[in-house]
Amino acid sequence: MTSKPLAFIHGAYQTKFGELWRMSFEDLLMEAAEATMKQAGVSLAQIDAIYIGSMLHTWVMGQNNLPGLVASTLKTNLPVYPVEMACASGGLAFHQAVQALGSGRYQQVLVLGVEKMTDLDSATIAECLMGAASWTERQAGLTFPGLYGLMQRAYQTKYGLSDEQLARVPVKAHQRSAGNPKAHFNSPVSVDQVISSDMVADPIRLLHASGVSDGAAGLVLGRRAGGLAQVLACEYATDTLALHERSELTSLKATKLASARAYGIAHISADDVDLWEVHDCFSIAGIIALEDLGVAMPGEGHKAFTKLPVNTSGGLKACGHPVGATGVKQIVSLAEQLSAGTGKPQAKSGSVGVAQNVAGSGSAVVVSVLGSV
Amino acid sequence: MTSKPLAFIHGAYQTKFGELWRMSFEDLLMEAAEATMKQAGVSLAQIDAIYIGSMLHTWVMGQNNLPGLVASTLKTNLPVYPVEMACASGGLAFHQAVQALGSGRYQQVLVLGVEKMTDLDSATIAECLMGAASWTERQAGLTFPGLYGLMQRAYQTKYGLSDEQLARVPVKAHQRSAGNPKAHFNSPVSVDQVISSDMVADPIRLLHASGVSDGAAGLVLGRRAGGLAQVLACEYATDTLALHERSELTSLKATKLASARAYGIAHISADDVDLWEVHDCFSIAGIIALEDLGVAMPGEGHKAFTKLPVNTSGGLKACGHPVGATGVKQIVSLAEQLSAGTGKPQAKSGSVGVAQNVAGSGSAVVVSVLGSV
Repeated sequence: MTSKPLAFIHGAYQTKFGELWRMSFEDLLMEAAEATMKQAGVSLAQIDAIYIGSMLHTWVMGQNNLPGLVASTLKTNLPVYPVEMACASGGLAFHQAVQALGSGRYQQVLVLGVEKMTDLDSATIAECLMGAASWTERQAGLTFPGLYGLMQRAYQTKYGLSDEQLARVPVKAHQRSAGNPKAHFNSPVSVDQVISSDMVADPIRLLHASGVSDGAAGLVLGRRAGGLAQVLACEYATDTLALHERSELTSLKATKLASARAYGIAHISADDVDLWEVHDCFSIAGIIALEDLGVAMPGEGHKAFTKLPVNTSGGLKACGHPVGATGVKQIVSLAEQLSAGTGKPQAKSGSVGVAQNVAGSGSAVVVSVLGSV
Repeated sequence: MTSKPLAFIHGAYQTKFGELWRMSFEDLLMEAAEATMKQAGVSLAQIDAIYIGSMLHTWVMGQNNLPGLVASTLKTNLPVYPVEMACASGGLAFHQAVQALGSGRYQQVLVLGVEKMTDLDSATIAECLMGAASWTERQAGLTFPGLYGLMQRAYQTKYGLSDEQLARVPVKAHQRSAGNPKAHFNSPVSVDQVISSDMVADPIRLLHASGVSDGAAGLVLGRRAGGLAQVLACEYATDTLALHERSELTSLKATKLASARAYGIAHISADDVDLWEVHDCFSIAGIIALEDLGVAMPGEGHKAFTKLPVNTSGGLKACGHPVGATGVKQIVSLAEQLSAGTGKPQAKSGSVGVAQNVAGSGSAVVVSVLGSV
């Protein structure tokens, strides 16, 4: 690993994730912005631009002019870049911020991911989330668990993964979130509980699905060296909106494309990576992610998920998945661990963490590579 | 004017604007993408990334994952950057594309602005457009004509602008669109017709308001010199979401901030500009824009609108205002005119055009400066 850092992370903060009935979108936005800047030791006057990832604001608040909302809430006239790309809104906001720093236009920027989901009832949220899917999938009556259910069915059939093997993935996620005060869920779950939990969309059961969370996360990124971690690469690729347009269901092409480019830019291979944050909106998604990222062979992702330092905060499944905030929170998690020296030191290169953030059922994927400073 | 170009415009295309019942969002997207690339003489294989501005896709199509939709429609895995910032979605997409080219990350990009409005009834569209306003304004029952009506009332009171003087603005807009085959409206209107048209939101009458249009526009931007026009600056500023949070109603602070920066970067003053594209969603908006851009003294914007080469295609009022497409179409209009030598040649610097694109009632404004090549 000899690549030149694209940016440095000077502040990283996550609000509590969960059903935050007393907090509005603006409250979450404000907490994340203020706490992130405080941690970085900067004020808004030292920020050149703001990037905000959010998915459901149009539906939840009837609001689709985020720059004005951010400007009003934070009392600023700074450029605010709204980023809406389903569950990878946060990851794309981070990608765009890194790119802007690379251009030299901005020296220091604030990146936010904010989502307020619990103001809508579950049925409406389920419908809104299908806004990330294709028209034909919506017309067919599919839900998001339904889409990932198709993937899980194909995967279990192809590789013979048993329900019990699969159940160890969310069990591990809940173990990891047990001591995390910011996590939505701190309760452990057992293999038996997973296997006997309610069927949401056959074969996906309740305890294979991430919940509906409110929450926000923030980063201060800058060109000046130092801080919590360095950004070595952040790449992004798209794929078809609909599952039926793809050649296979057990792998995401966009993850493969984005990670190949990101590893190339960072001069690393999957073997060099110490920490992983993968988009486990469903158990099967976390498994496939690790295979597409080159960590495990096809069919073996479930073992890597439980054995390696993957989603140590609990991930989307157990820490929570406030959709637009997730991509930013993944970077926060990596930065905190890299800063604390949690990663396994490499001979020459320090520790490396990789985050993978997915839009919809894989229509877009952002892969980021971070290194310790 | 001695500034270094940030990018060059190699292709510029606008679809017909109007009530395009036979065309879907994807049809408009495809037509704009293909025709723009054809005009630039490039294929998708020579494009590094796609930027798409669109406002109402979530409401009109239930779709809020534009990258996947674009990837599926154009059959590509390229990075697609979705840009949603109310009626300045197109302008911000252009801004972000120019910024990305400046970073050296991309050599050539496609910028699209696409909006399909007529699939919703007018009452629903009116409600959706208020998604660009503040919660308190929505709760008060305000509509977009209502917001601009408050500005028009304040302006007419402050400067004594008569209804007849004001009416000359849309009359001129319709004169300009008369021969434009791409315009939504080709019919002339008279001062009497404007003054006696139905009251929409007192004091705004029907013929002071832009219509509800479908349409798309596209640009191929690149780092290689040549093409139709060069981009000298593209700046962007935010302001409060709500009118009542501002110190005045007869001027947009975000236009002043963005234009001051853009002029500085382009090394020009308003006097150097030959062609103007301003965001005349309502007559009063076009008038205020010219004052904030430094073309006219406060109270005198209406004269500049009718006398100078402003919105020569007919502008939002008469050519049409498919909201997310408008900011891209403004650049298309300037590029076509600069390429055709329509501008008045300056002694040393060639011709210069400026476009101003507004989100909501002024919560964000993008100002772009283009020059002839």
